[in-house]
Amino acid sequence: MSIQEIGAQLVALCNAGKDHEAVDQLYDEKIVSIEGQGSEEMPARMEGIEAIRGKHTWWYDNNEVHETKAFGPYCGHRDDQFIVRHWMDITPKQSGERLQMDEVALYTVKNGKIVQEEFLYSMG
Amino acid sequence: MSIQEIGAQLVALCNAGKDHEAVDQLYDEKIVSIEGQGSEEMPARMEGIEAIRGKHTWWYDNNEVHETKAFGPYCGHRDDQFIVRHWMDITPKQSGERLQMDEVALYTVKNGKIVQEEFLYSMG
Repeated sequence: MSIQEIGAQLVALCNAGKDHEAVDQLYDEKIVSIEGQGSEEMPARMEGIEAIRGKHTWWYDNNEVHETKAFGPYCGHRDDQFIVRHWMDITPKQSGERLQMDEVALYTVKNGKIVQEEFLYSMG
Repeated sequence: MSIQEIGAQLVALCNAGKDHEAVDQLYDEKIVSIEGQGSEEMPARMEGIEAIRGKHTWWYDNNEVHETKAFGPYCGHRDDQFIVRHWMDITPKQSGERLQMDEVALYTVKNGKIVQEEFLYSMG
């Protein structure tokens, strides 16, 4: 699959609420996931598909998700990277304060699988 | 300046219609600009601030710009990269067909100046 096809599948699965399937189908076993900041419970950098599945479970356990939308993929000159914009309307259970998040993720692909995802957050 | 400050200035200048000033103030003399595709007239990869000024002039000469919006900056774990989303409502003079473009640009910063911009286009 081209990065455009992989990206389009990722967007479609996210928009269908099937991000678990996206991990199963599109992610490499050695996936590296990098957030801007981490905590002791959830480090910024996590490696391996089981860690990423655990991260997803943690996220759904800790947030009430009202709506999510994925936009893209955005593709450029590189045949191993694409970007997806993720928009979320959530209520973190700890604060109870509903908020909207606007972020982008830069995905790196190797041998037809996503091997890295880096998240960047709107500061605007 | 932090990448967050550089990104915020870039977004503010773009939204004020002052992208020429953004180049003057924020770009390195040796800026590299990479589009997804190029032509003989406008190669995908251009180097140097004078080439980028020429590219901007060419773009405004060849498109009627109805509206542009910049969103972000989006910042993550790296202290040398940020992303901005650019939305444009334009009519290319050659086709005369009005269209909206949704793209993101990945900027790389070195010594406080933008040294590379890579454009990725929405395929969604």
